[in-house]
Amino acid sequence: MTALTDLFAFQKETEALAQIAGRLGWDQETMMPRGAAAQRGEEMAAIESILHARRTDPRIGAWLAEAGEESPSQVDAAQLRHITRSYERASRVPADLASELARVTSVAQGQWAEARAKDDFASFAPVLERVVALRQQEGQALADGGDTYDALMDDYEPGATAGQLESMFAEMRPRLVELRGKVLDKPAPAGVSGTFSDADQMAFTAKLALTFGYDLSRGRIDKAVHPFSSGSGSDVRITTRTNPDDPFNCFYSTIHEVGHACYEQNIDAGYALTPLGAGVSMGVHESQSRIYENQIGRSRAFTGWMYDEMKAVFGDIGVDSADAFYAAVNRVQKDFIRTEADELQYNLHIMMRFDLERALISGDLPVTDLEQAWNTRFKQDFGYDVPKASLGCLQDVHWSVGLFGYFATYSLGNVYAGCLAQALRADVPDLDSHLAAGNTAPATQWLRDNVQRHGGLYAPREVIGMACGAAPTAGPLLDYIEEKFSDLYQL
Amino acid sequence: MTALTDLFAFQKETEALAQIAGRLGWDQETMMPRGAAAQRGEEMAAIESILHARRTDPRIGAWLAEAGEESPSQVDAAQLRHITRSYERASRVPADLASELARVTSVAQGQWAEARAKDDFASFAPVLERVVALRQQEGQALADGGDTYDALMDDYEPGATAGQLESMFAEMRPRLVELRGKVLDKPAPAGVSGTFSDADQMAFTAKLALTFGYDLSRGRIDKAVHPFSSGSGSDVRITTRTNPDDPFNCFYSTIHEVGHACYEQNIDAGYALTPLGAGVSMGVHESQSRIYENQIGRSRAFTGWMYDEMKAVFGDIGVDSADAFYAAVNRVQKDFIRTEADELQYNLHIMMRFDLERALISGDLPVTDLEQAWNTRFKQDFGYDVPKASLGCLQDVHWSVGLFGYFATYSLGNVYAGCLAQALRADVPDLDSHLAAGNTAPATQWLRDNVQRHGGLYAPREVIGMACGAAPTAGPLLDYIEEKFSDLYQL
Repeated sequence: MTALTDLFAFQKETEALAQIAGRLGWDQETMMPRGAAAQRGEEMAAIESILHARRTDPRIGAWLAEAGEESPSQVDAAQLRHITRSYERASRVPADLASELARVTSVAQGQWAEARAKDDFASFAPVLERVVALRQQEGQALADGGDTYDALMDDYEPGATAGQLESMFAEMRPRLVELRGKVLDKPAPAGVSGTFSDADQMAFTAKLALTFGYDLSRGRIDKAVHPFSSGSGSDVRITTRTNPDDPFNCFYSTIHEVGHACYEQNIDAGYALTPLGAGVSMGVHESQSRIYENQIGRSRAFTGWMYDEMKAVFGDIGVDSADAFYAAVNRVQKDFIRTEADELQYNLHIMMRFDLERALISGDLPVTDLEQAWNTRFKQDFGYDVPKASLGCLQDVHWSVGLFGYFATYSLGNVYAGCLAQALRADVPDLDSHLAAGNTAPATQWLRDNVQRHGGLYAPREVIGMACGAAPTAGPLLDYIEEKFSDLYQL
Repeated sequence: MTALTDLFAFQKETEALAQIAGRLGWDQETMMPRGAAAQRGEEMAAIESILHARRTDPRIGAWLAEAGEESPSQVDAAQLRHITRSYERASRVPADLASELARVTSVAQGQWAEARAKDDFASFAPVLERVVALRQQEGQALADGGDTYDALMDDYEPGATAGQLESMFAEMRPRLVELRGKVLDKPAPAGVSGTFSDADQMAFTAKLALTFGYDLSRGRIDKAVHPFSSGSGSDVRITTRTNPDDPFNCFYSTIHEVGHACYEQNIDAGYALTPLGAGVSMGVHESQSRIYENQIGRSRAFTGWMYDEMKAVFGDIGVDSADAFYAAVNRVQKDFIRTEADELQYNLHIMMRFDLERALISGDLPVTDLEQAWNTRFKQDFGYDVPKASLGCLQDVHWSVGLFGYFATYSLGNVYAGCLAQALRADVPDLDSHLAAGNTAPATQWLRDNVQRHGGLYAPREVIGMACGAAPTAGPLLDYIEEKFSDLYQL
């Protein structure tokens, strides 16, 4: 077993270095002095160059060839599957292209932020053109004759194809559009109002994180401009932000990130610093963040508990019953921003981005026409005009850093969360009585046992299918959304 | 110039990776969740192994050989001097020995902390024996036939020898011992007392850091159990700690770390991520931290300003005049702990460690006899008994992590600071009038121009000699201490 042993030892060191790179990213968003940005760029480039060299190290090919003659255990076979896939993909991308992509996207991200601040898409277009061109090249190299966009998507959701997603979206769109029409015809419920100090929000958010099972002995909560979770194994950190007028922004982004973080924290400890020791795909990751945030965190039962807790901390919060609180948490509004969208409209934002980015990658949509195309499509899908680029095609960072093929995983996550929630409620029929008492353990334990602990052992659709007893489809999510909002808006 | 270009590019990446390793160390002491320690060990091992491989990469030898035929500029020649030295030293140490040392010292540090908490030297002795044995081996490999201890010391203070330090200490000891006798015969001045909240101490310490020129746009201040500074170039962070009964612990450790940090921050920006871009030796580093802390921060003029500032923030601080405050800041007491020692006694602590560790490395002192030898020597040097190991031979972390040859650099730093302070006062005759107004700029600017900006361009004694116009000796430090404490204690 020498080849396997050597390969796994090499891989473990690579995973440890990847954790370090991730921690540097965390530091950059939370702790780094602002004057350190240029030096940090050099540091990130150095470790990324080491990682790229390791991921394409020809010794991996030799070890894999030798290991192919062994009969590995189920776990080792899964490890080998991940290592083989990563090695083959990394080896297909020329080193020059990889480093050019790293360089250009790092510049593009800064230019995107500047352009967004000025609502000036034209100043961002040239660098975005360069990013698209490089990702097209990379996609072609990865596809090796297959579909370029699918090859890019495979980085985030192994095995998913644009065709599958098209069918899924085709099933979702009419039901969501119809429901939205009915809901927006009704008067909007009131939001909360009151005094929500930064310190009180942070204390409450920490309480929520613990309530959802986040292990602070292996994590921490800090503030960042855009909330994220970061790290695997025994060092999984989350960030949040506070807004004095909107405590839900803080609380629900915390619950969302806790979903991601608990997935990482609850993976079998034996997989630490191996390819199995991290969430298996972005879609499955998002299923955990979404089910924590929405099906659990925004449920009538849980918000009932949260209403009392918030009143105890913040006093008068401007709504006078648990029902009104539940309505405030779930209110559906005309808006422009994906990250702030309610459960009903969120996936409509994704469908738009999915179509637009496929057109960018295929070349059917020139980058210079993106703003126009976005605004036209938004009007068509949402019925009102985008007033400025920061509320339109400049709202998301993704494309600036080359994340084409990523957006659809958010909807996949929602769909998976819909399936998991259905199975969870079948297995734990008295779930609401626990949630109403602020006890999420029956839900989080079920997710841990059925999804989280497996890490990368199974393929994405496989682990969801095993947890639910059936292949995932959009049906359960759509049924759940229709039921929830029909009830809320008395349709 | 291809060899030089390639060598410098390779070196820059190595320096960037070394900065990352340093930042991980910072994270470990300030931010890391306690449950992440084991995983962090793997991460540190991975990056240290990359660094070791790069420092001994045979391509460096080839580039150096080729570059030897060029005529480099003064700066490039200095870069080559550092790279050659580092490559030759790293190449002399077998990889097995290097990794065994890393492994054992990481374990030993934990065992030291446990032993110290229990005042139980015997439980620490076995692992310390192993550390000593490994460092003996390493020292022999590095010495290449020369003196083992000198070879170890060369890591921290290039060019320094035990012989030089012996002479230096021989000059210092009688004058310090005589002065201490006179001072301890006098009544001890009162200390400060009052209410020193954590938040107020942290706010005041940040003000002090800014007063001494620390650039917070390229640094930050956090709390740690043991204060330290970390990083080079544009990301140089410091830590401090608070004790409700002893605000000076916080304030003077901050000023000390700011001295280290300003040295790093003020190095010529063109040297960033090169061997010249960091402090040239531990002794020169300590000269900066000490002159900030002592000759400036504990001066009568500066403490006069600080007295008013402290009263404004903390109200009644238990001393009723600037003179009494000055006496409190500088009071000499019988104590056991090096890090809390006053300027008069500090170097006597170092002399003890210097002699004991040389005996450990030569083998004259078996590790099992260390506690006994420490206690005997302490009684002899200080005149009273050590009551427990945490106040004796277990007080410092250094030996557990293999830092033999390091302690003497603290005294070298004090001696260098003495020389620099003398030269500074000659160049800036009205220094005290500035310090009395809380303006340290004339002093810090002088240090920046004469020492800090050079980074690694000159050898340690060379840069101090250039700044002072004469080779460094212990005389100025001793004169300064005698004058200061004779005045304070009216001898």
